[in-house]
Amino acid sequence: MRNFEFYNPVKIVFGEGSIAKLKSLVPRDKKVMLTYGGGSIKKNGVYDQVKDALSGYRIIEFGGIEANPEYETLRKAAEICRKEKVGFLLAVGGGSVLDGTKFIAAIANYAGEAWDFLDGKARPSVAIPLGSVMTLPATGSEMNANAVVSRREMKEKRPFNSPLVLPQFAILDPETTKTLPESQRINGVIDTYVHIMEQYLTTDGGAWVSDNLSEGLLRVLVEHGKAYVEKPDDMTVAGNIMWASTMALNGIIRLGADSDWSTHAIGHILTAFYGLDHAITLAIVLPGVMQVMRTNKKSKLLQYAKVVWGITDGPEEERIDKVIHKTEEFFRMLGAKTKLSEFGITEDTPTLVADKMQSIGLLPCGEHRDMDYDIVKEILSLRK
Amino acid sequence: MRNFEFYNPVKIVFGEGSIAKLKSLVPRDKKVMLTYGGGSIKKNGVYDQVKDALSGYRIIEFGGIEANPEYETLRKAAEICRKEKVGFLLAVGGGSVLDGTKFIAAIANYAGEAWDFLDGKARPSVAIPLGSVMTLPATGSEMNANAVVSRREMKEKRPFNSPLVLPQFAILDPETTKTLPESQRINGVIDTYVHIMEQYLTTDGGAWVSDNLSEGLLRVLVEHGKAYVEKPDDMTVAGNIMWASTMALNGIIRLGADSDWSTHAIGHILTAFYGLDHAITLAIVLPGVMQVMRTNKKSKLLQYAKVVWGITDGPEEERIDKVIHKTEEFFRMLGAKTKLSEFGITEDTPTLVADKMQSIGLLPCGEHRDMDYDIVKEILSLRK
Repeated sequence: MRNFEFYNPVKIVFGEGSIAKLKSLVPRDKKVMLTYGGGSIKKNGVYDQVKDALSGYRIIEFGGIEANPEYETLRKAAEICRKEKVGFLLAVGGGSVLDGTKFIAAIANYAGEAWDFLDGKARPSVAIPLGSVMTLPATGSEMNANAVVSRREMKEKRPFNSPLVLPQFAILDPETTKTLPESQRINGVIDTYVHIMEQYLTTDGGAWVSDNLSEGLLRVLVEHGKAYVEKPDDMTVAGNIMWASTMALNGIIRLGADSDWSTHAIGHILTAFYGLDHAITLAIVLPGVMQVMRTNKKSKLLQYAKVVWGITDGPEEERIDKVIHKTEEFFRMLGAKTKLSEFGITEDTPTLVADKMQSIGLLPCGEHRDMDYDIVKEILSLRK
Repeated sequence: MRNFEFYNPVKIVFGEGSIAKLKSLVPRDKKVMLTYGGGSIKKNGVYDQVKDALSGYRIIEFGGIEANPEYETLRKAAEICRKEKVGFLLAVGGGSVLDGTKFIAAIANYAGEAWDFLDGKARPSVAIPLGSVMTLPATGSEMNANAVVSRREMKEKRPFNSPLVLPQFAILDPETTKTLPESQRINGVIDTYVHIMEQYLTTDGGAWVSDNLSEGLLRVLVEHGKAYVEKPDDMTVAGNIMWASTMALNGIIRLGADSDWSTHAIGHILTAFYGLDHAITLAIVLPGVMQVMRTNKKSKLLQYAKVVWGITDGPEEERIDKVIHKTEEFFRMLGAKTKLSEFGITEDTPTLVADKMQSIGLLPCGEHRDMDYDIVKEILSLRK
């Protein structure tokens, strides 16, 4: 078990009807920029609820933040923040809107080039305060300081984090998920599942509390993930999936443990290259990581097999085969495709992705930084 | 699953050697009161580490805070705080020291009678900021806003809480547990276990995330509790028990769920009457609560039997019998006595305790407020 520090002052306001509480959360003396995505919030009533709650506030709007939020879009929003002297950002939508808003908050008052923050050249020293109404359980962005920003012209997708962009609050109203399309429900369960797996499926390090918490969350997804996809009106299911997705990435389940973010690292490149949904890239990559890294991760794979999937009989290697298969089968049962060829991708993806990762300094990866160029190629070769 | 709000800005600094980080956590411009208990911190080196870390600070000390901190003692400390213009309180020790320090923080600058805060007549509007070095994993007080204060002359033990006494930080260094006596190790595991049970073992309310997190923590205690008692030098074990005890009562595992604090309510009276260790009263009472409330809690008892103890065979009532027995056996295996008669208590405790609870307004209790005078008598009758 490793030493750790933990500090997470995000206020969570969970439950049906909680959007109305915005008026006690958003500072009234600041000009507010309301950020959102493609406009689904205008169809499902969330936009109206937000505007009702904030009636009397000075609000400007910035819609059109894309899935995998685009660098150039965010720069435009930041420019408006600067000109309009925006004092608070309210992100209404899913992880992409919130990630984008975090980046806007950080770059709005930065005199240098925004890319510096994605390039590691600089870190923000100020940020506009922000909060969120999270309508898409998936990324966990609502209770952490992380964001991912894409720049399509460079075929890149880069992580960004700063304690300054930790949201002041997150409203989680399960009702807002009712109108989500099926694909986003499937993606949400997979994204959450893989977030947990990447903090859990490492070399055994004696962080038993975190291991057990992770297993608990995985069990919730295994038991109720399919119902979430199929029964949009079941608010008990939606509420639990929503809260599980927040818990999966608020930092708690990784305390004292190692993390292996290689699935995300590889997945980001697949999204940047082919525009695949983020969660789908994770469903493609994770089974490959489990397979290729099965020796290092043996003890955790066996524990995962036992506690999450009830696989206890048979020789160890057989149990590991079984649980890798079970994991992929779970993603497929939810409704996801998990092979590159199913998306018509037939070029030499393993080499292209490994080359790109090499060139932008993402290799080696894994909890021991021992997953190199060849290992990435091997992983993707299994996922054609 | 119920609506909830969650906000917990306590900074956790976990790991061996972390006491040295005090100098970055305690404000240098404030006069600090260092509070502690019977002086064990002077024998085990913790006191020296704290003083080293805070060399150059203006510090006054207040030792002698009792197990089950005494109202009169805390009033004396508060008086000193007032006179000396103390600006920060640093509690070094276990839950009693920290609970006492929270109460000191709240009453120090209160013009009225301190008892008002325990009597429900008033709530604090200011408090001296505080932090803690927690040396005894048990109460979870280090990451919540709760405290319990005793007043022996009135044979009472009363809860107190205020967001103003939430510690700014808690240092958790597993090394500090090495010199704990066996009885405090046993108590720590039991206290933590029962904290989790009281938030978990309720009528099933669909808070699956919280249920699963609770089950995960319970499993850690079942698997490693005995090792913690027997192997004081195993820092992986101590670290996990320590972190589990914090997680058990920082609010996370109860989110969206009901809680049933009847075991604590009854236990507090037993401590006030007979001076029994807090955790021991919980070990005495919980099996009785499980037995008497087995119909209301049936579905959770079966789930608990299955997930935590692996009991899946046989008729439902038999499984419930088994798991109640298992739970008591676990406490006894750790080294605790679990019956009143084992402490030489042979008077009509059921009536005396039920009378007291009635008279100070603690009845009815339980998650549905349906545990009345007769039920409390029935529970304690089973625990003679």
